[in-house]
Amino acid sequence: MKVTICRKEHFNAAHRLYHPDWSLEKNQQVFGKCSNVNYHGHNYELVVKLTGEPDAQTGYVYDMKKLSDLIHENITNRFDHKNLNLDVEEFFHLNPTAENIAIVIWNILRNKIDKNLDLKVIVYETERNFVEYPGR
Amino acid sequence: MKVTICRKEHFNAAHRLYHPDWSLEKNQQVFGKCSNVNYHGHNYELVVKLTGEPDAQTGYVYDMKKLSDLIHENITNRFDHKNLNLDVEEFFHLNPTAENIAIVIWNILRNKIDKNLDLKVIVYETERNFVEYPGR
Amino acid sequence: MKVTICRKEHFNAAHRLYHPDWSLEKNQQVFGKCSNVNYHGHNYELVVKLTGEPDAQTGYVYDMKKLSDLIHENITNRFDHKNLNLDVEEFFHLNPTAENIAIVIWNILRNKIDKNLDLKVIVYETERNFVEYPGR
Amino acid sequence: MKVTICRKEHFNAAHRLYHPDWSLEKNQQVFGKCSNVNYHGHNYELVVKLTGEPDAQTGYVYDMKKLSDLIHENITNRFDHKNLNLDVEEFFHLNPTAENIAIVIWNILRNKIDKNLDLKVIVYETERNFVEYPGR
Amino acid sequence: MKVTICRKEHFNAAHRLYHPDWSLEKNQQVFGKCSNVNYHGHNYELVVKLTGEPDAQTGYVYDMKKLSDLIHENITNRFDHKNLNLDVEEFFHLNPTAENIAIVIWNILRNKIDKNLDLKVIVYETERNFVEYPGR
Amino acid sequence: MKVTICRKEHFNAAHRLYHPDWSLEKNQQVFGKCSNVNYHGHNYELVVKLTGEPDAQTGYVYDMKKLSDLIHENITNRFDHKNLNLDVEEFFHLNPTAENIAIVIWNILRNKIDKNLDLKVIVYETERNFVEYPGR
Repeated sequence: MKVTICRKEHFNAAHRLYHPDWSLEKNQQVFGKCSNVNYHGHNYELVVKLTGEPDAQTGYVYDMKKLSDLIHENITNRFDHKNLNLDVEEFFHLNPTAENIAIVIWNILRNKIDKNLDLKVIVYETERNFVEYPGR
Repeated sequence: MKVTICRKEHFNAAHRLYHPDWSLEKNQQVFGKCSNVNYHGHNYELVVKLTGEPDAQTGYVYDMKKLSDLIHENITNRFDHKNLNLDVEEFFHLNPTAENIAIVIWNILRNKIDKNLDLKVIVYETERNFVEYPGR
Repeated sequence: MKVTICRKEHFNAAHRLYHPDWSLEKNQQVFGKCSNVNYHGHNYELVVKLTGEPDAQTGYVYDMKKLSDLIHENITNRFDHKNLNLDVEEFFHLNPTAENIAIVIWNILRNKIDKNLDLKVIVYETERNFVEYPGR
Repeated sequence: MKVTICRKEHFNAAHRLYHPDWSLEKNQQVFGKCSNVNYHGHNYELVVKLTGEPDAQTGYVYDMKKLSDLIHENITNRFDHKNLNLDVEEFFHLNPTAENIAIVIWNILRNKIDKNLDLKVIVYETERNFVEYPGR
Repeated sequence: MKVTICRKEHFNAAHRLYHPDWSLEKNQQVFGKCSNVNYHGHNYELVVKLTGEPDAQTGYVYDMKKLSDLIHENITNRFDHKNLNLDVEEFFHLNPTAENIAIVIWNILRNKIDKNLDLKVIVYETERNFVEYPGR
Repeated sequence: MKVTICRKEHFNAAHRLYHPDWSLEKNQQVFGKCSNVNYHGHNYELVVKLTGEPDAQTGYVYDMKKLSDLIHENITNRFDHKNLNLDVEEFFHLNPTAENIAIVIWNILRNKIDKNLDLKVIVYETERNFVEYPGR
């Protein structure tokens, strides 16, 4: 009897998409205006989903308050009001596309949550652009 | 060629999280402010999903109007503007966490809908806290 | 050159509409299902608006972070996860309609904010029912 | 390491639900007010999801801008501000239920996107009525 | 001590913008794709606002349930799942722009609501196009 | 018989709040995490409101399509996917608070729109922080 619980958090960050080995022209051609050299930014919305059996006594799969705290400590406190390329070490050598942001967040959280709970991460870059990563 | 149809409904209810065998202190420790003795409340959003083959003549998997009526008769007419702990018998002896609310709704609706349609229930306690239950 | 800044916060609360001098039947007749004796509840959204001249040095009418803290200290810490009728003294003898909730919040905040800033309060009881109070 | 990218677009269209072999009465009985002979309309929201491995160099599963352009060229330029029954040939002999709209869109896009990417289509007829089609 | 109460309702309708004295070309030039001869449609959202003094006994400016019923009887029952140009007499000789829809709704409701309450109407044609009419 | 028409557009931008004459410490103290030296960013939503008499022939106060084009040409094409502090000249010597962004946008648009139409600008920095500027 597995239930999935979902917690939505947000962070506001600057980023720039580019490949360090490519010329400015090549980067503009591939990433368009997302490659603006002075960065641009987003209000990211992050949904973290955990799937497991509800505890018989509490009726909780996982305490939503604890999940929210865990996301704050490990993700939003480090990403919010930051420049992903310059301030967050996971993106010093990794292009901060929505896909890579979701993978990075999943990898960080996977180590903090009991393995008998399945983990899925959804990242909204805008209301109209979003990605889902269920892990490997 | 299976399609999933989804209908969203809502209900406004009071509830309190607690375990009857635990002290007030233990309940506060486990459930925090959700255990306030005088209750608190939510605008719940409920999404019901049915998966099956569209009918060749109507192009419907299931009539959305009938699904809405079914949810009203069996769920929202009984849950809306109620205290889940005191007014809804399924929660007289079951803690009304979002997880348990989704399981209860799934169990009620499963008996009312043809078994060749898969059923999934999503319950939003707030815009940021929600649960999904695909059934057993 | 006046600008209005707006901050949205939320709180989840139980309440019941009724008049203490009226019979149960009269209350049901006037307030319908909102008068359920065991309470029901809502995810309230609160928008607080302040109008004034932006400061020449900061470019702020009022620091949004300070406004958010002020609302937390004076309103949401006292209203969130509470029963408005039983836990919040302003409603011990005042019916907690959306209208009265907005007036109570305006009266509390008016005393905490410099008088050269105009104050307006909006309370969403649901996405479809909301009230606006610009003060006296 | 598969990631799903999602792009949301919209179109505004008129439609009418009916079966050409049935009487007006039978159509009204089955489709209710959705069968109004002079049509009604919706702001449709369309979500297209592609699942695959992110490219090692770009960090993209698929360029969101290209996906948006593809949807515009093949779907929204043909469906937006149109009457689905009268202006869009796929529905000349197919009832434009949300289910059939999703299937038609999936069939059109499946031919335009590399087969090693999984495709899923979600169509919102209203905020409260929506369908999901993951393909055959 | 005036408070404004607001009620949001919705209706789904087809329409076409055109001037009957103009050629097809002139209509296309002025109204663009909104002038498609076979109509298109929208999920309209309607907000009705009433401003007045809360009643001392109920704490209501106006019963939200009664306001909702009034809007259903006079507006949405007549507009929902209809073609505004062909099915709603107010638009037989009036172009159903969002501006004119708001004015028509205001005129209808003004006759049904006590004159000591101020009336304002907001019509959302889409999430991004909307109009406000406070009356004459 | 004045009606207000409203058009919502968006742009994604990076920015940093700071006063050039102040030390890093003073800027951090006043602007908190909004003063991060490497910038952060937002999905800004912009609402432009025009108030005037609907034209007798078209039923339009102003063509929404033309208003959208005007906003694109003068605002979003210049602000979207940019760093407001470094790429947009109006903010080279002006702190890009939401207040100042609204004033700058109003000043730009006021010169492009007929003076017999009233102009108001609303800027959402996040869903919970927004400002309104009705002009001088």
